[in-house]
Amino acid sequence: MEAQLQELKKTDKEIQLLVHTAALLQWDQETGMPAGAVEERSDQLALLEGMIHDRLTAPRVGELLKKVMEKFGTPGFSMLEVDENAPIFFEKAFLRSFGRNYERAAKLPRRWVTEMAQKSSRAQAAWVEARRNDNFPEFQPHLEELLRLTMEKAEILGYPEHPYDALLDEFEPEMRTGEVARVFNELQAKLKPLVGQIAAKEPVDDSFRYRTYPADTQREFSSRILREMGYDFDRGRLDESAHPFTTSLGGKDVRVTTRYNEQDLFNALFGSIHEGGHALYEMGIDENYHGSVLGEGTSLGIHESQSRTWENLIGRSVEFWNHYFPVLKKDYFPEQLSDIDLEHFIRGVNKVEPSLIRINADELTYSLHVILRFELEVALVSGDLKVRDLPAAWNEGMKRLLGVTPDSDAKGVLQDVHWSMGAIGYFPTYALGNLFGAQFFKVLREDIPEVDREIARGKLRAVREWQGENIHRYGSSLTATELCGKISGEDLNPEYFIQYLEKKFGNLNDL
Amino acid sequence: MEAQLQELKKTDKEIQLLVHTAALLQWDQETGMPAGAVEERSDQLALLEGMIHDRLTAPRVGELLKKVMEKFGTPGFSMLEVDENAPIFFEKAFLRSFGRNYERAAKLPRRWVTEMAQKSSRAQAAWVEARRNDNFPEFQPHLEELLRLTMEKAEILGYPEHPYDALLDEFEPEMRTGEVARVFNELQAKLKPLVGQIAAKEPVDDSFRYRTYPADTQREFSSRILREMGYDFDRGRLDESAHPFTTSLGGKDVRVTTRYNEQDLFNALFGSIHEGGHALYEMGIDENYHGSVLGEGTSLGIHESQSRTWENLIGRSVEFWNHYFPVLKKDYFPEQLSDIDLEHFIRGVNKVEPSLIRINADELTYSLHVILRFELEVALVSGDLKVRDLPAAWNEGMKRLLGVTPDSDAKGVLQDVHWSMGAIGYFPTYALGNLFGAQFFKVLREDIPEVDREIARGKLRAVREWQGENIHRYGSSLTATELCGKISGEDLNPEYFIQYLEKKFGNLNDL
Repeated sequence: MEAQLQELKKTDKEIQLLVHTAALLQWDQETGMPAGAVEERSDQLALLEGMIHDRLTAPRVGELLKKVMEKFGTPGFSMLEVDENAPIFFEKAFLRSFGRNYERAAKLPRRWVTEMAQKSSRAQAAWVEARRNDNFPEFQPHLEELLRLTMEKAEILGYPEHPYDALLDEFEPEMRTGEVARVFNELQAKLKPLVGQIAAKEPVDDSFRYRTYPADTQREFSSRILREMGYDFDRGRLDESAHPFTTSLGGKDVRVTTRYNEQDLFNALFGSIHEGGHALYEMGIDENYHGSVLGEGTSLGIHESQSRTWENLIGRSVEFWNHYFPVLKKDYFPEQLSDIDLEHFIRGVNKVEPSLIRINADELTYSLHVILRFELEVALVSGDLKVRDLPAAWNEGMKRLLGVTPDSDAKGVLQDVHWSMGAIGYFPTYALGNLFGAQFFKVLREDIPEVDREIARGKLRAVREWQGENIHRYGSSLTATELCGKISGEDLNPEYFIQYLEKKFGNLNDL
Repeated sequence: MEAQLQELKKTDKEIQLLVHTAALLQWDQETGMPAGAVEERSDQLALLEGMIHDRLTAPRVGELLKKVMEKFGTPGFSMLEVDENAPIFFEKAFLRSFGRNYERAAKLPRRWVTEMAQKSSRAQAAWVEARRNDNFPEFQPHLEELLRLTMEKAEILGYPEHPYDALLDEFEPEMRTGEVARVFNELQAKLKPLVGQIAAKEPVDDSFRYRTYPADTQREFSSRILREMGYDFDRGRLDESAHPFTTSLGGKDVRVTTRYNEQDLFNALFGSIHEGGHALYEMGIDENYHGSVLGEGTSLGIHESQSRTWENLIGRSVEFWNHYFPVLKKDYFPEQLSDIDLEHFIRGVNKVEPSLIRINADELTYSLHVILRFELEVALVSGDLKVRDLPAAWNEGMKRLLGVTPDSDAKGVLQDVHWSMGAIGYFPTYALGNLFGAQFFKVLREDIPEVDREIARGKLRAVREWQGENIHRYGSSLTATELCGKISGEDLNPEYFIQYLEKKFGNLNDL
């Protein structure tokens, strides 16, 4: 029994070493790999991914899991019922996560995996072209193929209520389509009038952000904020890449990237804070989980809650800039910001404007972009929407939710890479992150009543310590739902995010 | 038959992908990995090295090789007898190299490999301490253990004449101890009087090299020279590391590193040119060999011939600086070099002075440092010298060969890392590189009579093209001995290196 568990842990450790090695191959590809290396790099990645899959789905793993599970109980138990200080806590959480990964991977036949890899590789190339040419029909047959494979995947994996549950489960374990629909409906109903109110006001002048800000100085300021957030440069690095990301190359090697746009102060600034939020999560995981399947964030939604809390709830707050704006203006960009005062800056940082592109959207409208994608994905997977009708449905949804209509598919249905990668079920996690983040932050404020004063003095440690104690250290030993219940005493509730937005944008009007 | 060959090639390709992935893990560790990652990184490397070893020594590989070899003939054939334009050329060369690697790896039992890995890891830590404390006895028991394991290795692998043959063979395939002794004896006999003559003259003033040279400007000049040598930045990168190196992460990803010392102009300058010479070799290998065992340099000696040709024969030549000194002075360091003329600079670049440390030695005395290490290694492996007597033997040898005696073991027998890694048999390749380099360069001069004039105009392309055509493209399909015979029509002959030195240092006296 003990020997069988040890063998599983050893397999898991090897898998994690390979996962982290593959992460280095990818990190290097994004940050500085010479162009000529791209072909062999993809062979290297394919080999490693194959080895990871083979180790995870080896028949021996299935046998071992079956035997060990008989002792430990079947998956489906709640980790909240287990004493987290008992040694059994790790074992049970480990078996739940590892078993879950095994189940999903072992169910999918190699034929399906290979076909998906090939078709999504071609679909990505087609998407790049279609977007460049603003020509959806070029992408349509590829997306139809990926949708067919995705629907096949849902049937192979099985699902409790809706086929979309099986897709969601990959990114947000144990989250259900019905649950997402419920919270998104509530959110949408509250957000739309709020957006309408603010859009009707005098437009905010944020033109100062588009002055010229040298990259080197931006880098220094990003590094400083990361350091003061608690990002540990002895266990990480800050580099540049076309698309910012955070990646773990080991429990003690959590790297972030950003992108410096000299004509836009906010890109790298909020990008760095966002990625820093992801990185604090990974850096804060219990060292005992390092090298195991538990040594990573528990879901994309919880991950996004950490990055968005830092980017928005903290990084766009009056308190934060109360401390950092004088620093930014005096020590970094005295010329560029000479005529800008704190109030002007904070309004610029929080400008709300319904727009076409999700990744450029403000804090208030962002979730509506996500809700549109969720609705369309569910309709596609249910068979209620055909791929060929997607552009029209997109434009109708943008009008309905945001009051704007794209003048091209390139700025509409073709804007995101996700579908071309076959990643259907991913988008909701972005908005779930907003909801989890606000729900957790409310508890944080109750636990640390002085937190706003601390932030206003540039003291960010209390936030990170609270997050570390309540969220980070658990890695993936608790699911998102368990974490949410443990922290807030209730299920996911969009009310907190809405209250936060109403209060914040109400107050900003009084500035 | 064809199927068996294909299976071997597929295994080889996987091994190369893993070798290149491991190279990335190492490159990253040397260039920018966060300090905290060191422990997991060594686990990642150990896992990959284990997988490479397991793939190479799988019983199936032995069976396949046996069957295929029956058709293709046993190893030991000369590739010079095979038409290099026939398809069979690749197959025969592939089987020879792959079979050779299999034989060596399969003979060594896992017990030995594990013990060597553990003991050398401890020995390296002990060496660092012993060197710091200038205390050889701290290192002695570790070196005794490594020597025991090394002698055991020689017996396991077998050898034609001398146990040292088996060690040399790892770094310089098919080179014999007797051959090295013959050329080193001749070299030594000629070098000693030459060094004596020059050392007796007025010392050269090279104090200008120790002025302050900002790293950024050094980086720009290093990059420029690399580019003009023909180093392709679309297939490589220049980074910084404590010890400069070149590494292949793929056939189209050959990276170099250097180290900028702001108080010494020559460190990064000649370091970059040296590594550039290694990189041109790897970048020049026939694309058909990429991803196979043939897609790398054929031996350390030939590799070193390429780096030393660029560093010394070209990079320290009157012709090279005739073009580059005005550029360096005008565009890069006008203040630092304001009072230095071309003649002064060239004398500084070629200053000869017997000294204690190999890696700082000049072109003339360098080989004598290597000859000492070779003599001591052979004596140790033969049992003629005990490890405890090594410091005395070292100091005696330094006095005899170079006329200087270390005032500490830290600057003597403890200066190099190699023995602490168990790398006995490696050192000779450094001096063999000087000999191969001069022998090849003589042929290059005959083939391209205008080469010196080209270099003096800053045109380096002709050199690289000749090297590409005659050396680089062959990868490891020809052995060092075959290459040497094919290019120069004779065996390795130290006479050419000696003639080069006599002519160069004779002429420098006339400057």
